[in-house]
Amino acid sequence: MSRKRLTHLDCSIAHSLDQIGDWWTLLIVREAFLGISTFSAFQSRLGIAKNILTNRLDYLVDVNVLERLQPRSDTARFEYHLTDKGRDLMPLLAALMQWGDRWLFGPGKEPLEVVDVQSHQRIAQLQVTNTQGHAVPLSHLRFRPGPGASEKTRQQFEELRERRRTKAAP
Amino acid sequence: MSRKRLTHLDCSIAHSLDQIGDWWTLLIVREAFLGISTFSAFQSRLGIAKNILTNRLDYLVDVNVLERLQPRSDTARFEYHLTDKGRDLMPLLAALMQWGDRWLFGPGKEPLEVVDVQSHQRIAQLQVTNTQGHAVPLSHLRFRPGPGASEKTRQQFEELRERRRTKAAP
Repeated sequence: MSRKRLTHLDCSIAHSLDQIGDWWTLLIVREAFLGISTFSAFQSRLGIAKNILTNRLDYLVDVNVLERLQPRSDTARFEYHLTDKGRDLMPLLAALMQWGDRWLFGPGKEPLEVVDVQSHQRIAQLQVTNTQGHAVPLSHLRFRPGPGASEKTRQQFEELRERRRTKAAP
Repeated sequence: MSRKRLTHLDCSIAHSLDQIGDWWTLLIVREAFLGISTFSAFQSRLGIAKNILTNRLDYLVDVNVLERLQPRSDTARFEYHLTDKGRDLMPLLAALMQWGDRWLFGPGKEPLEVVDVQSHQRIAQLQVTNTQGHAVPLSHLRFRPGPGASEKTRQQFEELRERRRTKAAP
């Protein structure tokens, strides 16, 4: 797998990207959400080479995004199912989908939609909200060091703040 | 850029991944959110090779995620700023970050956090909601063909439905 190591960057975005590995991973997860569970079904639907698929499925089992089950003991056929960690990638898939719907396809041309099985309605646009549940405009969002930030990250943020101060000065 | 073409898959997830290109793209977008705008600042913060950074910045300008500005006409120094399309990647970054915070770092160990500048509080967990704004449990979410689905996609969904019906049968 031609993965770049991004874990020198002190940030969950970099670590998540590193663990997700590559785009195939997310497409396999999408297929698993669709109910696909066997090697042959993943393979025929994604049109992915068998050795790459083997590699990715093994990887996803290793990092606990999928679990490998053998539903019948009299056959060697495995099934792959999402774990809680894997299912928790749904907001990420929804974010990718909504961005593509908006900027690449446009309204009324969405190839897929995500629906709530109870209401049969499409889900709403993902919104960044504050802890009171109110939407926060994107222009109001800022990053800052979290409780687990390294000393280096804290220093970098100080430098950024300094840079903005200098820039804002006349 | 070693990009896989994923656009044969009729889905905004695949198209978004295809356009985003590779992980560096999202990390450059993250830096732009942090206020980084010059080549040298992107380079020193990400530790990315200059030729790769040149390539990615050009690409992000081409696909209208960043715009290239020349703030002072007496210098050749460019700045890169997020477009609306680029800023709209924030929910995706937040989804990546929250997944990593939860599954890779754990509570209290988050390296970075996203805050609302007005309340100075961390944003809430992204939630998938229905159109009435109520959270939908992940187990209630299903994909279905959207208004722009191809004939092939519709057929594939029919096959999936058929497969589930057969499986559910005694």
